[in-house]
Amino acid sequence: MNAHLSDDQQVTFDQDGVPQYRRPVAQGDDLPQVAEAFWAYEQALMSDDLEAMAGLFAPGEQTLRGDASGLMVSHEEITGFRGARGGAPKRRIVELHVRALGSDHASTVAITELVDASGASTGRGQQTQVWTRSDNPDAGHQGWQCSVAHVMVAPPVFDRRVWRVLGAPLVPAAAEAKEQGALAGHTVAVKDLFSVAGQRVGAGSPAYLAEAQVQEATAPAVETLLEAGAEITGLAATDEFAYSLAGTNTHYGTPPNPRAPRRISGGSSSGSASAVALGHASIGLGTDTGGSIRVPSAYQGLWGIRTTHDLVSREGLLPLADSFDTVGWMTRTPQALADAAEVLIPETEVAAAAASVPSAMGGMASTSPRLIVPKGPVAWPASRALGELKAIPQLTDLADPEVAQAVRSAAAEATQLDVALDEETLGQWVTAFSTVQGREAWTNHGEWVAEHWEQLAPDVAARFRRAESFSADDEVRARELIAQVREKVRGWVGEGVLALPSASSAAPLIREASAGGELIEAQRQRTLMLTCVAGLAGLPVVSVPLRTEGSEGRPGLPVGLSLVGPSGSDKALIRYAAELVGAEVAGAGQR
Amino acid sequence: MNAHLSDDQQVTFDQDGVPQYRRPVAQGDDLPQVAEAFWAYEQALMSDDLEAMAGLFAPGEQTLRGDASGLMVSHEEITGFRGARGGAPKRRIVELHVRALGSDHASTVAITELVDASGASTGRGQQTQVWTRSDNPDAGHQGWQCSVAHVMVAPPVFDRRVWRVLGAPLVPAAAEAKEQGALAGHTVAVKDLFSVAGQRVGAGSPAYLAEAQVQEATAPAVETLLEAGAEITGLAATDEFAYSLAGTNTHYGTPPNPRAPRRISGGSSSGSASAVALGHASIGLGTDTGGSIRVPSAYQGLWGIRTTHDLVSREGLLPLADSFDTVGWMTRTPQALADAAEVLIPETEVAAAAASVPSAMGGMASTSPRLIVPKGPVAWPASRALGELKAIPQLTDLADPEVAQAVRSAAAEATQLDVALDEETLGQWVTAFSTVQGREAWTNHGEWVAEHWEQLAPDVAARFRRAESFSADDEVRARELIAQVREKVRGWVGEGVLALPSASSAAPLIREASAGGELIEAQRQRTLMLTCVAGLAGLPVVSVPLRTEGSEGRPGLPVGLSLVGPSGSDKALIRYAAELVGAEVAGAGQR
Repeated sequence: MNAHLSDDQQVTFDQDGVPQYRRPVAQGDDLPQVAEAFWAYEQALMSDDLEAMAGLFAPGEQTLRGDASGLMVSHEEITGFRGARGGAPKRRIVELHVRALGSDHASTVAITELVDASGASTGRGQQTQVWTRSDNPDAGHQGWQCSVAHVMVAPPVFDRRVWRVLGAPLVPAAAEAKEQGALAGHTVAVKDLFSVAGQRVGAGSPAYLAEAQVQEATAPAVETLLEAGAEITGLAATDEFAYSLAGTNTHYGTPPNPRAPRRISGGSSSGSASAVALGHASIGLGTDTGGSIRVPSAYQGLWGIRTTHDLVSREGLLPLADSFDTVGWMTRTPQALADAAEVLIPETEVAAAAASVPSAMGGMASTSPRLIVPKGPVAWPASRALGELKAIPQLTDLADPEVAQAVRSAAAEATQLDVALDEETLGQWVTAFSTVQGREAWTNHGEWVAEHWEQLAPDVAARFRRAESFSADDEVRARELIAQVREKVRGWVGEGVLALPSASSAAPLIREASAGGELIEAQRQRTLMLTCVAGLAGLPVVSVPLRTEGSEGRPGLPVGLSLVGPSGSDKALIRYAAELVGAEVAGAGQR
Repeated sequence: MNAHLSDDQQVTFDQDGVPQYRRPVAQGDDLPQVAEAFWAYEQALMSDDLEAMAGLFAPGEQTLRGDASGLMVSHEEITGFRGARGGAPKRRIVELHVRALGSDHASTVAITELVDASGASTGRGQQTQVWTRSDNPDAGHQGWQCSVAHVMVAPPVFDRRVWRVLGAPLVPAAAEAKEQGALAGHTVAVKDLFSVAGQRVGAGSPAYLAEAQVQEATAPAVETLLEAGAEITGLAATDEFAYSLAGTNTHYGTPPNPRAPRRISGGSSSGSASAVALGHASIGLGTDTGGSIRVPSAYQGLWGIRTTHDLVSREGLLPLADSFDTVGWMTRTPQALADAAEVLIPETEVAAAAASVPSAMGGMASTSPRLIVPKGPVAWPASRALGELKAIPQLTDLADPEVAQAVRSAAAEATQLDVALDEETLGQWVTAFSTVQGREAWTNHGEWVAEHWEQLAPDVAARFRRAESFSADDEVRARELIAQVREKVRGWVGEGVLALPSASSAAPLIREASAGGELIEAQRQRTLMLTCVAGLAGLPVVSVPLRTEGSEGRPGLPVGLSLVGPSGSDKALIRYAAELVGAEVAGAGQR
């Protein structure tokens, strides 16, 4: 080599050919100890020295640290977070600006660059900190401690917790409907259980995806949305085979819950829900077998509908349990919920579909549940007025007190149904539900699962283990009970609307959910006591977004009010739900 | 309706059914004027009251405002930005925390939610501000002004300036190579000109995309990467038909340049470059006709290679100008550049391909350029040592002074070639290049373009208008000059390496680029004087990332050192470039 970089170059290269910058000179630095404290913290961060970091943050309840996952308040919460994360991503500091704020306070603004394994820089971020001098000169760095920290990094290419495939769009709207269709302008996140031509079905399982074939046809429910002018943004995350209510997919990670930061998304329609809550799409298409629309709607403050069983085509949908699987969707507004319903639930099909419900429930057809479908298919249900709002006190009591309070406030004037329900009875209902669900899930997936136990998430594997264990006799007994429950619940609902919580609690914190899984399983069982009521009866449910009381200037957490309507009343139920909160939704062509 | 939300609910709904939160109570507020100043600013922001916002920010050079696009320093820069953006996205404040820092300073931390057209919240963000009390009680709000602001919002679903389609991955690596292949672990951003089975070719034009057919085959260059174990992350943005060097695609927006914030990306391989600089992919596959690899590499501080013309298959690639189109790629490290070269340029094909170069240049074959390909294909070029580094002083002088300085420092000991080149001569070379490029571009795209003038970006349309205007005689004369230039340049290079700037300037600021386009066109013409040298000769070029001198604690801007090697020397040239900066790259199987 007969050339080299001269010594006065701004940039030098390490042995991997990665450009290295000099440590930047602090700008505006009239308090040199602050820059020193900054670098001391940076060193502690890069070596994951938890003790040093804790000492460099101001103690007490007033200390703040925020990033894209949310804001933490108090030294204790911040140090707990650091202890759990196992080190920060490697980064370098590109610029550092120090601003003195009097003699005892200062702020630093640093431009950061995350670096890859070779040390090369990737996207830039910014870290803003406020530093305060303690009375104790031994605290922090010569008394300087960070009292406010704001950490921003460049986002990844896309959020794989939420999405598997994305496009701009992934599938365009039908050309003739793009401008004038009923859903023109809408964007859809499709749960990764629906067939989309040219794409594989991933079902939340990397092992299943690896063996999946490219689909040649698009599921009718998805096709109907395209033909109405909506475009498909992408395929969204699901819990593995939709066999969970949590959204804590261990393979792809738990999707973020933007309306309840650091809390789980709810599932199994987790990616569709987060996509809508994040503004990535306006319609989150999903499925609800035991609550997979209602729970994420509740946890994330969305409007959601689980449709009457068999009302919307399940063709091209990877099944979990055919007796309970329903198509549903989530939106930010009741208008969007209604717009999609107008398209997905054509007037002329409602009566026929609703009338077919009993046969879809297998052995239950013989029990002749009291159907409430009126005779005339054309006039119904567009003009139908639902009856009074009803509540079963015991059901609301199953929820956490703050959830129960929010639901009771919203349904303050509901008729109290004089029905005796205890936890033992509801436990039997859940068992019957889980038995039929398990038998059908094993029929659908047992062969594949039996060869892939090791590649399933532990919680999902445990459910399939239980599913495998149910006998044909178990199923017969379960179906007998379900037939009775179905008749009973449909009797309670009549032509009215039943009010109950969408989930038994607000969304648990992710770190609670990660701690062994017991909490998630316990809350799943408790939530199923609420959600199985409509599920067993095959009835439609609209989940209305409410919130618990907030405290200390921080908003409350999202919870859901489930409104269960008569079979086939789906569209009327959406209007009822909107009116309940004082909103109006316009029908097709009225906007 | 016989139920309503009780008055003590935390949440209320507006007429669209969108939950509304109460204005949050400021927490920790022992300086009430600060919260008032915060709300005054928020009101000014939502009404785009530029005067009020300017007054609420502290004057002078020390004021800081940063967001995902980068950090601005000084009141002047911040107010200039605000004036140009035309209003901020609509948002609401969910939480507000106020912290007094003595009596004259305070910080506020606000949790924000962007809202959609109906007012429904989407993702959350955080805004951290430092407030300072001015000596003038009439300034800002009762003397309080913002001196530091850090604005973070939830990112969009993905960056459509960088990507068109994305997956996790979009196309998996070949199963047998995923673990052990030469490119195992690599992720590729594929310029949206290459065919990928199942995808359309978008070519940076929404109108072209709308009419594009789904491809049945994958381009061999892409397939080769997959077979070596790399996976395809997605299809990345390009300037329309690759007919630009700027990356300022008016349809999809200018991709971000993370290593030179608020500056253009360079193009036309703009998305591939930004994807690599952002850490979204490790290999940015692109093309270089007149500089479309070299310019984004230089602007974004990447390693890049434009391969010897026709050395890497262009099958399945939408052409611009066949005489000059080459496949190239960009990486963060020279090792990755070499890894991809090992795969894409097989030893046994090098000599044959290099020998075929003249015929690919059409009429130029008859001029018999001095080929430097040695006889033995096996021993070459792996063991080949390139000769001395050479420089043509006039070429370096074409660049901006700070770019020229960076290149001269890097090539301090280069032999000065005694060659007389003036701007008039280079202007004739550029004209010859542009003529043949234009004739071929019109042959490739004229029919489509003639029916879609209105749907092209103005700058690209202007180039096609000029392309349409060239006559067959123009082309004959241009090809005659090119044949001479080709011989001349190949003579200069010999078996050595020619050093010159990759682009005539560092990346212009986006706001300068947006101002009418004259600046971009002027810089394009000047850059073409540098890049056409290798392009006309069909020679390979490696662009090495350098930086200009920084100032005042802020790092310098990325610029590129182009190393032009003999025909077919591509792999040796990468090693030479790495060694030039003191790095070593391991060959295949050596890592």
